Amino acid sequence: MRHDLDCYPCFLRQALEAARMATADEDVHRAVLRQVSTLLAELPPDTTPIELGSRIHRTIRERTGAVDPYRRVKEESNRKALSLYPRLKEYVRTAEDPLLAAVITAAIGNVIDYGANPGFDLERSLEQSLEEGMARGLTRSDLPGFAARLDDVDHLLYVGDNAGEIVFDRVLVEEITRRGVRVTFAVRGAPILNDATLEDARAVGMDRVATVVSTGIVGPGTILAHADPGFLDLFSRTDLILAKGQGNYEGLSGEEGPVFFLLMAKCPVVARDLGVAVGDLVLRSARPQGRAGSRSLPRPGAAAAPE
Amino acid sequence: MRHDLDCYPCFLRQALEAARMATADEDVHRAVLRQVSTLLAELPPDTTPIELGSRIHRTIRERTGAVDPYRRVKEESNRKALSLYPRLKEYVRTAEDPLLAAVITAAIGNVIDYGANPGFDLERSLEQSLEEGMARGLTRSDLPGFAARLDDVDHLLYVGDNAGEIVFDRVLVEEITRRGVRVTFAVRGAPILNDATLEDARAVGMDRVATVVSTGIVGPGTILAHADPGFLDLFSRTDLILAKGQGNYEGLSGEEGPVFFLLMAKCPVVARDLGVAVGDLVLRSARPQGRAGSRSLPRPGAAAAPE
Repeated sequence: MRHDLDCYPCFLRQALEAARMATADEDVHRAVLRQVSTLLAELPPDTTPIELGSRIHRTIRERTGAVDPYRRVKEESNRKALSLYPRLKEYVRTAEDPLLAAVITAAIGNVIDYGANPGFDLERSLEQSLEEGMARGLTRSDLPGFAARLDDVDHLLYVGDNAGEIVFDRVLVEEITRRGVRVTFAVRGAPILNDATLEDARAVGMDRVATVVSTGIVGPGTILAHADPGFLDLFSRTDLILAKGQGNYEGLSGEEGPVFFLLMAKCPVVARDLGVAVGDLVLRSARPQGRAGSRSLPRPGAAAAPE
Repeated sequence: MRHDLDCYPCFLRQALEAARMATADEDVHRAVLRQVSTLLAELPPDTTPIELGSRIHRTIRERTGAVDPYRRVKEESNRKALSLYPRLKEYVRTAEDPLLAAVITAAIGNVIDYGANPGFDLERSLEQSLEEGMARGLTRSDLPGFAARLDDVDHLLYVGDNAGEIVFDRVLVEEITRRGVRVTFAVRGAPILNDATLEDARAVGMDRVATVVSTGIVGPGTILAHADPGFLDLFSRTDLILAKGQGNYEGLSGEEGPVFFLLMAKCPVVARDLGVAVGDLVLRSARPQGRAGSRSLPRPGAAAAPE
């Protein structure tokens, strides 16, 4: 997915927020904004939001020396989400359709996003989204197709998104493994925004219910051309993939393959692309699928990584 | 008031919105965003939001050839606000304190602002703000001081802000003239954003209840150094001035003089400066006043106008 003109102000806001997380020095904040403004002034129209996000957060790392500005925020998200875990489990356990309930739970967790969700208030947003999401359900749902595929496979690759959110993902992972399908859970290759890394996966016990791997990508989404050879190989061999959140949708929506996207549409650009409203919970399959094994994937190292 | 770093993304959003009002050509939208990004990348820290806004809207005029992109929006605002006029008058007429009611009415009208209010929905915002504003009243109020000054003077200079909003201002102007104080109502010198011009003042009948003049300024606020000599002279000779909205507050809050500011705090930057919350209605006097006649005002032509 290419960026939209609406991404310009949004990325500038995101850059300011991240700079403020990294340092209290206002001169640095201004320097970051200026550098990102220059980046925007020269932006090629085919740049993807993920590439742009990667460059912006690299700028902040270089300017501030902060490798992981969102560390504290991520720990807080994990902690808060873990405190909701028993309630999420109870919701799924008592649901008439536990798979649907677990899918909705995971989609609601996607509200935890410091990139797309300005002024995000963890306590308030989570509680409120939980109530609303459970009441509203999925707007665009390919759940029957997903459930049918689940019955056919013995392994699913789950591409995660944000810290905190992965507690909600864990509930869905547990529902999937309960159905006899083992899960590999992929996280980003290094800290970027509040995206989940290996550290977060361990913090919420994801490693106890799934095999946790890294995509090798340092960007707020999954662009296969930037992935580790190991992840690419896994991606090409797996017959059912669940990609979580906007960043993974932006990166993978143009790919062929047995991919389902699960997310909350959080910005007008992605919502437009999906044909839904901002705030809607969506589960949808990717474009018509090629047969497993015959998919054309980028060769490892075919493109320069964004970092 | 200088700009804040939070103004960066806000101005980029504003530029995109104005470019879209001016033309449907996406290449032009992108060109405007690039040019404004370059402007932001090189922005001197002491630039005021009004200067920045002036430059951005000049960029859009130059790129698109559209002299008045908000014309249709302004006409619609005037029309919709005029349809509420009888209700506003009734609210003031039946109020225990008609001056307070008229002041609140005028402050509520300040919600009509395409600059500071993204995604502004005229129908919804007006009705909703009217209900809320009447219920909440003023957050920070120097009304006793303002009322006392009104008793002392026979002339008030009212510096207007946006189209549509001036219908609400007219209600306050009428309450002021009812108290035996004649009013001069000042509007911008040329179209900028949805700010009121002579055309709008006439469209809502302001010229029937006040003397309407132009500040001579082509910018979304009042910077005295950019004003016409005639307006400067009027400003310096008038013993009571009411300046409406954020743009006039930004431009005049550093000036000495018998100025009261009436506005809704619509952005975090201005709200912080005022010590109130976003959405609050405020009437406050300027800094300690010099004596009329002894105020130091910029000499006409002392600074280059922003246009």
